[in-house]
Amino acid sequence: MKTIENVPFDEIQVGQTCSHQKTITEQDILLFAKVSGDNNPVHVDGDYAKSTQFGERIAHGMYTAALVSAAMALELPGPGSVYLTQSMKFKQPVKVGDELTILIEVIKKRAGKNFVTFSTLVTNQHGDRVLVGEAMARVSTEKIVLPAPELPPVHFG
Amino acid sequence: MKTIENVPFDEIQVGQTCSHQKTITEQDILLFAKVSGDNNPVHVDGDYAKSTQFGERIAHGMYTAALVSAAMALELPGPGSVYLTQSMKFKQPVKVGDELTILIEVIKKRAGKNFVTFSTLVTNQHGDRVLVGEAMARVSTEKIVLPAPELPPVHFG
Repeated sequence: MKTIENVPFDEIQVGQTCSHQKTITEQDILLFAKVSGDNNPVHVDGDYAKSTQFGERIAHGMYTAALVSAAMALELPGPGSVYLTQSMKFKQPVKVGDELTILIEVIKKRAGKNFVTFSTLVTNQHGDRVLVGEAMARVSTEKIVLPAPELPPVHFG
Repeated sequence: MKTIENVPFDEIQVGQTCSHQKTITEQDILLFAKVSGDNNPVHVDGDYAKSTQFGERIAHGMYTAALVSAAMALELPGPGSVYLTQSMKFKQPVKVGDELTILIEVIKKRAGKNFVTFSTLVTNQHGDRVLVGEAMARVSTEKIVLPAPELPPVHFG
């Protein structure tokens, strides 16, 4: 079984990073529309989206943000931490087929309350920054290793 | 057919609000885990979640944020706008059965580039603030009314 584990507060170092890749699919956008309730046709209707400034369907900005939060939840700082704040600028649209890189980097540690500040950056396959932000979490002082639950598949229709 | 429509820049007034209610279900949390990739057991494994400081499964913070972005995308300012920034503090955990109120309020208008700043607040049935934040969007100057696409149902398993 796969596991997920954290980086405990004492082991976190300024400059430490984790990086993930994700290629955006139609199903990702549809599922995000479903779960968020945001069925704005710029996300789910290709014909309408063609008439907009974007020229084709785009992913929800908050979907890209969800990839950031997943990287933080699963790897850096990982389980046992508490997500406190997140700021973000949406710099470029994300489209189906885009290959995103999610980069989390430790930029500050604050002992006492075990607060850690992270830079959160998402770029696409052209090197364009699509999301730029900063997050803060309270990080566990203990090493945590957990089985990663398997989620059932999802079907539309 | 249902429609969605925007509030054009000239009609937006400081102090204007929109408000939505949403009761959180198990399926919401599972779907968000699936689409974000964040299967941290604090969200999807009730037995594990009991052992944490939260005492039961909690929703992903970014799921609550997704409800904020949906309210903005669909109603205030609505379609045709471009989401530029969002900041948020996660103040309290959100649990299955929580009845959330999502409140969007216009706090600043900046002509020229048609930028509008919004306060974004989510409270629960006890009146606790679960998400506090601020967003900025570029708002269309034209009135836009669109058919709201129907999304197919989603099934697990």
